[in-house]
Amino acid sequence: MAKTNTIITIGREYGSAGRQIGYKVAEDLGIKLYDREMLERAAKESGICEELFETHDEKPTNSFLYSLVMDSYSFGYPSSSYTDMPINHKIFLAQFDTIRKIASEGPCILVGRCADYALEEFDNVLSVFIHADMDARVRRIARIYDLTDAKAKDLIKKTDKRRSSYYNYYSNKKWGAAESYNICLDSSLLGIDGTAKAIEQLVALKETVTDRKL
Amino acid sequence: MAKTNTIITIGREYGSAGRQIGYKVAEDLGIKLYDREMLERAAKESGICEELFETHDEKPTNSFLYSLVMDSYSFGYPSSSYTDMPINHKIFLAQFDTIRKIASEGPCILVGRCADYALEEFDNVLSVFIHADMDARVRRIARIYDLTDAKAKDLIKKTDKRRSSYYNYYSNKKWGAAESYNICLDSSLLGIDGTAKAIEQLVALKETVTDRKL
Repeated sequence: MAKTNTIITIGREYGSAGRQIGYKVAEDLGIKLYDREMLERAAKESGICEELFETHDEKPTNSFLYSLVMDSYSFGYPSSSYTDMPINHKIFLAQFDTIRKIASEGPCILVGRCADYALEEFDNVLSVFIHADMDARVRRIARIYDLTDAKAKDLIKKTDKRRSSYYNYYSNKKWGAAESYNICLDSSLLGIDGTAKAIEQLVALKETVTDRKL
Repeated sequence: MAKTNTIITIGREYGSAGRQIGYKVAEDLGIKLYDREMLERAAKESGICEELFETHDEKPTNSFLYSLVMDSYSFGYPSSSYTDMPINHKIFLAQFDTIRKIASEGPCILVGRCADYALEEFDNVLSVFIHADMDARVRRIARIYDLTDAKAKDLIKKTDKRRSSYYNYYSNKKWGAAESYNICLDSSLLGIDGTAKAIEQLVALKETVTDRKL
């Protein structure tokens, strides 16, 4: 039996340990975490092949024209509800549907992929953004992938740029802006277990607070 | 005796009840909150008249030229350490010095005025940013100042613009960006008492966490 009724979405800077913090919270609260599992499920439910979800994962295509060309097969063949749009939009919308379906099944944690935006109408959502100072992120990525500090920093910058472009393109909010999320936390302040604990305390507070008036 | 060793800085969107939340935390933790009190103290300690601090409070001047003209009296009369610079810079630096002096005296809460930036080198600081959704802020400001919703919204937008310009001008960080603060909280999610409680729990976590490694 889960210890919460809340759905937690986690946006995260690359190297901030956002996903690992999510796994700790999921374990402590007895709920499932969806990261890449979302892609597999969205593929199954939409009938679009899974490789396409992986190719497009958290990446907007560079231009509308490019996506039209890459997607020329779908024009003029109205066989699914996602037909008359470029493939990256189809992928996004199929994922969007899957996120809402997963959320309607009960409490869970959803990492990345604009889940906070997809669930904007849900009442029982706590949207979290996890960031960390650059030095701590470089140390983590250099250690995990055995990279030089310079290469780790480069990878961090590129990945964050990709994630923010995806988020800013598909949602009506700004990636990493405080007001896009309920809570933003610096994981280099509290560490992995400390940040997980902070999220669990916030979930408990959200579930007990009755007076939200300002 | 204070229940904490931490200095808390609070940045806040206008209408988010950031200051009121700060007062609740100060009361619960038994520490002093500095808001406009900073101006009075900075005036006393710098010898610059207090009215000037109020005129320039959280406002950058529009241009360097303007501040040169307004400050023509100070040129060529090197009588204090802040002499060879425009008045808005003098005011900022005097405030900056006072913030560091207040912080070195012990745990307290400092609201606004780039205190998080002034205290960047201090270990025992928790920097907080409080925001809230626009509807909740409009309701609060319209109620407190007896304004129409439209006028309240206009006042909110102008005040936030002023605060962000001040912060972005004087600090090396971006106002309202998650990564500029340790913690950002949506006060319309937890209300005034709930948000205060969340900050107190985070202070306690920060003071007990030993492993910050990512």
